[in-house]
Amino acid sequence: MATGSGSTTAEHLRAALDGPWGSVREEARIQLAGQEFTGDPYLDYKAARARVLDQMRVIATLGYAERGFRRENGGTSEPGAAVTGLEMLAYADLSLWVKAGVQWGLFGGAVENLGTERHRDYIRRLISLDLLGCFAMTESGHGSDVANLETTATYDLETEEFVVHSPTPSARKDYIGGAAEHARMAAVFAQLITNGENQGVHCLLVPIRDEQGADLPGVTTSDDGLKGGLLGVDNGRISFDHVRVPRENLLNRYADVAPDGTYSSEIENPSRRFFTTLGTLVRGRVSVGGAAAAGARVALSIALRYAMKRRQFADPDSGEETVLLDYRSHQRRLLPLLAKSYAYAFAQNDLVRRMHLVQTGQDLEPGAQRALEKRAAGLKVAQTRHATRAIQECREACGGAGYLTENRLVTLKGDTDVFTTFEGDNVVLTQLVAKELLTAYADEIRDLDALGWVRFAATMAGDVVRKRSGVRQLIQTLRDRGDDGIDEGDLARRSVQLQLFADREDYLVRTAAHRLRARAEETGPFEAFNNAQDHILAAGSAHIDRLVLEAFIEGIGDIEDPDAKALADDVCDLFVYTMLEENSAWFIMHRFMSVERAKAVRRGVNELVDRLRPHALTLVEAMGVPETMLRAAMLDDASVYERS
Amino acid sequence: MATGSGSTTAEHLRAALDGPWGSVREEARIQLAGQEFTGDPYLDYKAARARVLDQMRVIATLGYAERGFRRENGGTSEPGAAVTGLEMLAYADLSLWVKAGVQWGLFGGAVENLGTERHRDYIRRLISLDLLGCFAMTESGHGSDVANLETTATYDLETEEFVVHSPTPSARKDYIGGAAEHARMAAVFAQLITNGENQGVHCLLVPIRDEQGADLPGVTTSDDGLKGGLLGVDNGRISFDHVRVPRENLLNRYADVAPDGTYSSEIENPSRRFFTTLGTLVRGRVSVGGAAAAGARVALSIALRYAMKRRQFADPDSGEETVLLDYRSHQRRLLPLLAKSYAYAFAQNDLVRRMHLVQTGQDLEPGAQRALEKRAAGLKVAQTRHATRAIQECREACGGAGYLTENRLVTLKGDTDVFTTFEGDNVVLTQLVAKELLTAYADEIRDLDALGWVRFAATMAGDVVRKRSGVRQLIQTLRDRGDDGIDEGDLARRSVQLQLFADREDYLVRTAAHRLRARAEETGPFEAFNNAQDHILAAGSAHIDRLVLEAFIEGIGDIEDPDAKALADDVCDLFVYTMLEENSAWFIMHRFMSVERAKAVRRGVNELVDRLRPHALTLVEAMGVPETMLRAAMLDDASVYERS
Repeated sequence: MATGSGSTTAEHLRAALDGPWGSVREEARIQLAGQEFTGDPYLDYKAARARVLDQMRVIATLGYAERGFRRENGGTSEPGAAVTGLEMLAYADLSLWVKAGVQWGLFGGAVENLGTERHRDYIRRLISLDLLGCFAMTESGHGSDVANLETTATYDLETEEFVVHSPTPSARKDYIGGAAEHARMAAVFAQLITNGENQGVHCLLVPIRDEQGADLPGVTTSDDGLKGGLLGVDNGRISFDHVRVPRENLLNRYADVAPDGTYSSEIENPSRRFFTTLGTLVRGRVSVGGAAAAGARVALSIALRYAMKRRQFADPDSGEETVLLDYRSHQRRLLPLLAKSYAYAFAQNDLVRRMHLVQTGQDLEPGAQRALEKRAAGLKVAQTRHATRAIQECREACGGAGYLTENRLVTLKGDTDVFTTFEGDNVVLTQLVAKELLTAYADEIRDLDALGWVRFAATMAGDVVRKRSGVRQLIQTLRDRGDDGIDEGDLARRSVQLQLFADREDYLVRTAAHRLRARAEETGPFEAFNNAQDHILAAGSAHIDRLVLEAFIEGIGDIEDPDAKALADDVCDLFVYTMLEENSAWFIMHRFMSVERAKAVRRGVNELVDRLRPHALTLVEAMGVPETMLRAAMLDDASVYERS
Repeated sequence: MATGSGSTTAEHLRAALDGPWGSVREEARIQLAGQEFTGDPYLDYKAARARVLDQMRVIATLGYAERGFRRENGGTSEPGAAVTGLEMLAYADLSLWVKAGVQWGLFGGAVENLGTERHRDYIRRLISLDLLGCFAMTESGHGSDVANLETTATYDLETEEFVVHSPTPSARKDYIGGAAEHARMAAVFAQLITNGENQGVHCLLVPIRDEQGADLPGVTTSDDGLKGGLLGVDNGRISFDHVRVPRENLLNRYADVAPDGTYSSEIENPSRRFFTTLGTLVRGRVSVGGAAAAGARVALSIALRYAMKRRQFADPDSGEETVLLDYRSHQRRLLPLLAKSYAYAFAQNDLVRRMHLVQTGQDLEPGAQRALEKRAAGLKVAQTRHATRAIQECREACGGAGYLTENRLVTLKGDTDVFTTFEGDNVVLTQLVAKELLTAYADEIRDLDALGWVRFAATMAGDVVRKRSGVRQLIQTLRDRGDDGIDEGDLARRSVQLQLFADREDYLVRTAAHRLRARAEETGPFEAFNNAQDHILAAGSAHIDRLVLEAFIEGIGDIEDPDAKALADDVCDLFVYTMLEENSAWFIMHRFMSVERAKAVRRGVNELVDRLRPHALTLVEAMGVPETMLRAAMLDDASVYERS
């Protein structure tokens, strides 16, 4: 299917999936293809960590880190390229990606976004790895509930220092990447207390180890040891026993403490200050979703390529053994996951572009930052959930071979498994998305306190969300474009598909609000919230699904090559039909879909996997994981697995 | 909730879940509680394998192995106790369970069931571990399709020997537990060729290593290396280059080769002979399902106990932090999985009892063996799928702590992950169950060849299955018992629930047959089969679900303590409502359930998790995993995770 321009369909499609920073991806495919950036599962965990640190030192020379920092801080101010470039590390090894993310994204991001000129020198040092840091937010006792962290940073006017302390066993910092071995300094989130008053959670820099790697006085680090994956990441714990740091170590972009202990902040509302602080760290969530999706693409590339080689059971008609991917059940296992991977790739590109515009000051719309946070949270959930399911399915679809470490799927599974948890637990993040919808962006009650938002949500108007989101406009555009013909209800029309997704979202948000209102009058707000929790989570998920479909549609709109576009359209249909099938009970129960239509959806999935089967290799190639980076022994061992 | 007898509700319930070999479980809880039977995740894989072998030597002295063999072979003829006792090893460490299963279940089972007196001496030696063996069935090129294995065993009349050979790279034996290091002898499945004729797959004993562990001449073993789990199991590969073994090494229970090369068998039909041979190995599938379910019980015990301690986010009404299990979403994540674990525990007990009756000659009904095989296949699928999902959910429900190896969930996940594959891939086994249903036990066409059974299935009568299965009788009994009152349609009635499960199964089987018939006329049988594959798989699953519900109902019938019985009834309701909710789209689409009823089902799940929440600890205790065997650091570290 070569086209006039000399590119293949797969190349056109890959260019579309590569998105706005395609050249960064292309460069990375060459730079990172070598064996030196892979993990070695046979190393013990100490050696694996050392290997990753060595790899980091090479990566630090390649310009990946600088992109993520502003020019005045020694960077090149390209946040979109930064996230995209680092995401490519995930193709090589997810431990390396996490390590880079902790150093440059989380630790570096905290210093860059929460610090001021006085912290600038740290940034130059952390880019070059002269300074290794960690991001000490989570505690053993509080992970999701960051506002109630227990670590304290108490200002001592006598010495103009903060005293950082872990007052309880549950206040110890935990799961902190870098804390077990490599980090010399921690960006510590703690309750800031000055003049006897608690000003809430703030971040300050605390040296934790000396040059030789020994704990500094008052600091006790320990090792989280082995995990479900990420062998090369040194997660650990930190406890503080009245550790003193200079006043200037407070990252004082949004709030400061004067030498005399006076607290000041440009943001008066404490809750808003807290969320502004956390909001600057949005890049972490953007990155986690992207890396999870990258892991899923590697797994699907492996499982689909294997499914095109491996044969089992003879076809009685021909006597020939059947290739796995020719079985209906195998197509249904893997191709809908491929369609989801396409959908998330477009959605992630769109998210990174939005993040880039906000973070480079090109998007100054009020509410842009907040909309970005919601979208990042939602796509983090969707992509990490997708990765967990898809990689599991890939493992099982490759049978015993899939279970061998040499075929990489189990490593991908173990490494990405925690992605549903870190940078925000998926349940909590889905709730966050739903709360944003329910409160229709009302700034004043944006609070983790159930009381406030339940009261507010209970009074909200209804379909504010949809009015704002522009989905109606997109549906209208699609109709105007003439995609819709005679049969308005035809499920194959994009506008009808999008309408179904939007209807579901609207209905769930509206009825969740109604349910909260009805309940809140009878019971307390917590009871009301808790009783409706499954409903609220469904509303959040429906919103995410709609955003993803919009991004997919818009992504296809940019494809010029007709063959590539036609193929992408079929994949988009499979994505839509798969999502409709997964939610068909809901659609029927709420009268958005007739029983006949639901049956047509199921048949549609079968027809689409049939139609896409001949293009499977093209679709895999277009996902853009180079064959050289797959590193699954079974794909290379033709004499064992291939027969004709 | 203590009762008159002095036992608690949990104890009564546990006795019911412990099943017919409760005393074996009780004994094992004491014997296996020690640290010496756990795995050590910090060992490298070579050391981990050595540790498991040491553990095996202790287990061999405790009588676990003897139960599985007949008295004349040095055992005690207690197959039910054997499977139950070994299952308990899964609470300690799944590598140990696999190693024991390979040695005594697979290798020992092959010698015992396929061999004759002339092989008796091997059994005494393998029970005591004087002889370490492996079960060399799967090859790199053929796993599910056992009938087409490539390894050959060609009889040489000159020397009265079999020549065992791997003619192609894909003929190498692969994933074989014990093959990498410890096994000295292999039970090899190979195409038996004598007098120039291929008589199909047979099993023969082939020494593979000398006393020092070196490969014997012509044998090449290699190591599968690291896997997704099961660190202590030495899976490996074996290739044969014209390896000669005496004629007597053929396990000749069902077929033999005379010194002159004449082949003879009491079973004339080759396909029937093949399935008879494989059928004797049913204990493996029974055991895998049981061990998977045991792993899920450990994981759920850990996650639920953590969810009762761990708090996150303050309830604004009380100011107190909320225990995770008080959140609706957390209840909905874990309690339905607990209900499934209860269901499978009853179903597994029932299966083991049936197996025991067949294998001790107490059940001589024609068709009993075959019905047992179908049930074992079905429950293997259901329980391994359940384990994979449940343990994953437990990991995620414990957040970052769940990802640390010290809290055991990731080890359980990795260790059980391959259970959906081994002893029969779940997709293939579900198909096998469905084929049995479709062909209504017609012996003559029981063949993996699609041609035969599609033709037959296409002519079958319809609801044969249900007439045979006795489900109607059970429904009638439940009605007679007066469980049903005025409202015949009340979903809370067991008979109505069971009727829904049976209706689904009937409908799917009948319509799958119809679809095959309609298609087979237009296309070839493979096309017809493949086109209906998702339908066929659904029929198989529906059958399994119905068998499980029946076993649950019968299990509850045996509980005498009223509190325990009432609690079990609620758990059974939750199981039913969960299954109905998962399949609600199907039920609505096929008019077995109204939209209103489907909504009632969803509300019912919420009501039931609410009702069961206060009994969560009782329900966990009743699952019967002793606290001492949980070995999750977070459960012991009260100062860090518990707050009040």
